[in-house]
Amino acid sequence: MSHSAHDMDHVMRVYALALRLAKHQKVKVDTDILKAAVLLHDIARIKEDTDQTGKTDHAVLGARLCAPILKKVGFPVGKIKRVQECILSHRHRTENEPKTIEAKILFDADKLDGIGAIGIARLFVWVGGHDTKIYRDVDLDTYIAENMGGKMNGRIQNKTKHSPQIEYKTKLIFTVNRLYTAQAKKIGKERLAYLDSFMKRLEREVKDEL
Amino acid sequence: MSHSAHDMDHVMRVYALALRLAKHQKVKVDTDILKAAVLLHDIARIKEDTDQTGKTDHAVLGARLCAPILKKVGFPVGKIKRVQECILSHRHRTENEPKTIEAKILFDADKLDGIGAIGIARLFVWVGGHDTKIYRDVDLDTYIAENMGGKMNGRIQNKTKHSPQIEYKTKLIFTVNRLYTAQAKKIGKERLAYLDSFMKRLEREVKDEL
Repeated sequence: MSHSAHDMDHVMRVYALALRLAKHQKVKVDTDILKAAVLLHDIARIKEDTDQTGKTDHAVLGARLCAPILKKVGFPVGKIKRVQECILSHRHRTENEPKTIEAKILFDADKLDGIGAIGIARLFVWVGGHDTKIYRDVDLDTYIAENMGGKMNGRIQNKTKHSPQIEYKTKLIFTVNRLYTAQAKKIGKERLAYLDSFMKRLEREVKDEL
Repeated sequence: MSHSAHDMDHVMRVYALALRLAKHQKVKVDTDILKAAVLLHDIARIKEDTDQTGKTDHAVLGARLCAPILKKVGFPVGKIKRVQECILSHRHRTENEPKTIEAKILFDADKLDGIGAIGIARLFVWVGGHDTKIYRDVDLDTYIAENMGGKMNGRIQNKTKHSPQIEYKTKLIFTVNRLYTAQAKKIGKERLAYLDSFMKRLEREVKDEL
């Protein structure tokens, strides 16, 4: 695991969410695959977070690293590839879109843990871990041009210039549209509305308007 | 300054709040004293936070350290003692109660920045800075006995065992009652209600109920 925002508690919240989403599917969900994928989806996160070159993708690396672990614990060998597919496609910024129902559920559950009250908590944990600012008044277009390679969904080039409201406006605000399952969209819509109201309120407090 | 939760942005938010509170007082407020006290109130915070013995009190030390700084910048010498009184009495856990109107306003403004949306942000910045947990299900009585010297208001003995909801339940929840000025109580009541609803919501999300 990496730090407080991606610790074992995150994994277990995603686990509970994933099983909740699985119950609402009309198609059959293989919970062996789903559970294994959830538990191992962030195993390479610490490598990505500590890689100074910025080249490590924890989804790609995690998909590779999970295989020997699953073999070792006697997980059905025939299902390992499908666990790997889930892990490979779970991240926001990726070309590997989730295709199976288990991959879609992992993606959705992981994203739901990034919004709502828990998402708010994790945003500021990130601030504390990077010793950066709680609030930053930036022009978004300039920021994206200068710090995200000109792409709304680009990789952040300088984390100390980033902030929760930038993360919200460039990424989290699109969460619901990116979710795959109907139940996740329902939960996501409510959580995103809460996150939105928090961000607006924070801005007013910071600007001494409340 | 210390870290993201007690950075210059915190000082400037408290500055704006303090001037807002000052406007609402019926008695005369010396804004020279208030401004100086706000700007310098956390100068010794980093000493307290990095003191492994746990003996440094940033209010006591800050009150001492501010005098030579104020002299150096040509601040009226006759007013320095009153700035020191403000800084000495601004912290939550203290025997030095604020007595002057400027000291009361500094205390109140500083506490208001610990609740509401900004208070929420700062709680989780603390989590990230200490690499501890977002949520911790504890029995409060046991926690107070084992980690706060048996006192609701006691010093935290092991910060890695602490958490935002414990901080809320043992300290922040009492914020409004501890404020001195009427205007601060009004702002505080609204901010505390928001913090309370956030904490309840976070608990439900963490327990997979929302």
